[in-house]
Amino acid sequence: MKLSIDTPALVLDRQKLRDNIQTMQAYAEQMGVAVRPHIKTHKCTHIARLQREHGAIGISAAKVSEAEALVKAGMDGILITSPVVTEHKIARLLSLLQRAPDLLVVVDCVANACQLNDACRQANLTLTCLVDIDPGVHRTGVSYAEAQGLARTIHNHTHLNLAGLQCYAGNLQHIATFEARQEASTKAMTQTASVRRQLLESGLPCPILTGTGTGTFDIDSAIDGITEIQPGSYTVMDQEYANIEGCDQQPFNRFHHAMTQLVTVISANHDTHVTVDAGLKALYIDPTQPRIISHPGLSYDWGGFGDEHGKVTATPGVPLPGVGEVLELIVPHCDPTINLFDRFYVVEGNQVVDIWPIDLRGCSQ
Amino acid sequence: MKLSIDTPALVLDRQKLRDNIQTMQAYAEQMGVAVRPHIKTHKCTHIARLQREHGAIGISAAKVSEAEALVKAGMDGILITSPVVTEHKIARLLSLLQRAPDLLVVVDCVANACQLNDACRQANLTLTCLVDIDPGVHRTGVSYAEAQGLARTIHNHTHLNLAGLQCYAGNLQHIATFEARQEASTKAMTQTASVRRQLLESGLPCPILTGTGTGTFDIDSAIDGITEIQPGSYTVMDQEYANIEGCDQQPFNRFHHAMTQLVTVISANHDTHVTVDAGLKALYIDPTQPRIISHPGLSYDWGGFGDEHGKVTATPGVPLPGVGEVLELIVPHCDPTINLFDRFYVVEGNQVVDIWPIDLRGCSQ
Ligand SMILES: Cc1ncc(COP(=O)(O)O)c(C=O)c1O
Ligand SMILES: Cc1ncc(COP(=O)(O)O)c(C=O)c1O
Repeated sequence: MKLSIDTPALVLDRQKLRDNIQTMQAYAEQMGVAVRPHIKTHKCTHIARLQREHGAIGISAAKVSEAEALVKAGMDGILITSPVVTEHKIARLLSLLQRAPDLLVVVDCVANACQLNDACRQANLTLTCLVDIDPGVHRTGVSYAEAQGLARTIHNHTHLNLAGLQCYAGNLQHIATFEARQEASTKAMTQTASVRRQLLESGLPCPILTGTGTGTFDIDSAIDGITEIQPGSYTVMDQEYANIEGCDQQPFNRFHHAMTQLVTVISANHDTHVTVDAGLKALYIDPTQPRIISHPGLSYDWGGFGDEHGKVTATPGVPLPGVGEVLELIVPHCDPTINLFDRFYVVEGNQVVDIWPIDLRGCSQ
Repeated sequence: MKLSIDTPALVLDRQKLRDNIQTMQAYAEQMGVAVRPHIKTHKCTHIARLQREHGAIGISAAKVSEAEALVKAGMDGILITSPVVTEHKIARLLSLLQRAPDLLVVVDCVANACQLNDACRQANLTLTCLVDIDPGVHRTGVSYAEAQGLARTIHNHTHLNLAGLQCYAGNLQHIATFEARQEASTKAMTQTASVRRQLLESGLPCPILTGTGTGTFDIDSAIDGITEIQPGSYTVMDQEYANIEGCDQQPFNRFHHAMTQLVTVISANHDTHVTVDAGLKALYIDPTQPRIISHPGLSYDWGGFGDEHGKVTATPGVPLPGVGEVLELIVPHCDPTINLFDRFYVVEGNQVVDIWPIDLRGCSQ
């Protein structure tokens, strides 16, 4: 890619991004589920707005600070996918709720439900909640067995609305073979769907059952009872997802690699490698390697060049690039690397056509 | 620590920070070397200004964008410690040079010296350069043997000033035992000092020989011919440096842990662990573990809770913290974690007395 921009930089192909958003939306519509995509991946309200324009019913967010930025940008339909538990954060949540009455938040314990209800009573507000179900990751959520009890507790609270369930199986998204991934995710989400049936049978409201990432969107959308999905990585993709198998037993290629990183060789004094201007602060370290797509036969090596520099080696017979040469690569894991940058350079062909701020970068609260 | 701030957050103890800056400065003065501390660690012009007020002769920066931010903040004496090689970056460098004529930059190949000279000639400017020597890391720099040749090339260019040498041995800073670290660093820096002697003997100017990090500052300062040091981590410290041995065979404790991170338990549904609100996006992953100092017997575990959440376990007999409880920890490696945040909460005792922007965060260009 020949672009007149300085490096390291994140480049976003607008057409590929649009295609990805369209592919996911069309698939979901065909399967009868809604899309509430997760902003944790791209951290960019501009992309969130594109997703809404393509039919997403809202946006999922991991943190209250992300939700605040989205509401400030005029977005609605926001779901916070982690429990909100401290006095501070609940105060922020309620002030958000005043501006965004359709805000949704997950709850994973009885004490938190009480705490939220008390805060809402004092503020004279009503908060809509989902029960967070733990599919076995043990990160957040209650067990399948406890979900109905917690749902009833929420429903009985005067200032909480029960709207359903969330179950996100992060541990299953990158299972390498499609068959094993399908088996595991079908098991987890079928169990969640049966909790939903129990709630409905016992007279509890459960309009929403959400979950699902890019690795299982096609598996979970087919399960009866799932009402919406919350994938994130499909927008830009990364090498981690390129390494899994798709439903056709081929490498997972349902979505384009819409995002790449440009880096530049700054030192080339050795036969064995060159040094580029992107280290741990531009490429978040990961067990997966970045893939250099501009120069076949070159590899990025985390090996010991630290925070500001990276090492690039060549397979035998392939010439090393020279000082000043620009390399283009697919990042290993999109989320934490995007969170290191302030902007996307948006391109069409070899032309930078826009710059989009990564305005939710650093929203870790 | 009982502080009324939201989490995850970086907390900076102002008195400990001042003590660290003072300790380094006093030691260097006693040894007859100057301090040009590296901003890559703290990314904060407020701290850089404190360092200057305590006697630092300038500030070292890894990237042109860091140097730009420093000049914009009114700082002088800036050294860029990596080669600047592309047309883009050289243009940025020269526009900086116009505002900061005492700017220093390292050079590690003949072609780059020519390129810089040509650009300076066109702009009618003179750039002051150091030869970057490679102590064996093979990241940037020329070999000891080639240093004099490159120095002469620079000296002979009409629009470059030769000002000396840089040699930073990043690979030696964390050698665990003091004896082995001393042996390795003394060898590397003594060789660099002898290059300096050769330059001076052959009539080349070499007022500056800089290098050195927090792990070898006391070793290198004692070597004849080193004129200045460029440590960074000593300002705030981290667990990586806490794990090495100091010159007294005790754990390295010359500097205080001036910076900690506060995180909060957001889910506690298991006997085995709780979940906190800081994952890979708030604590940059590292082979070293964070150390929880508020709750003896608890450990932070990177294990699989992803970008937004962390897992905390307890040694047998130690109770797990409850939902909402705040934990204080020492981060594994200060540089990349600071680069994830926008501000330091500055405290004295249990009082937040100021907020300092991490204004160079994200300056990776
Ligand atoms: C709760 C939740 N939902 C959705 C996603 C999106 O998953 P993916 O990026 O795999 O599409 C994530 C990612 O970690 C998540 O934590
Ligand atoms: C060129 C250079 N100088 C100085 C430092 C500061 O070292 P430390 O943080 O160990 O004090 C670094 C750190 O990586 C560096 O790369």
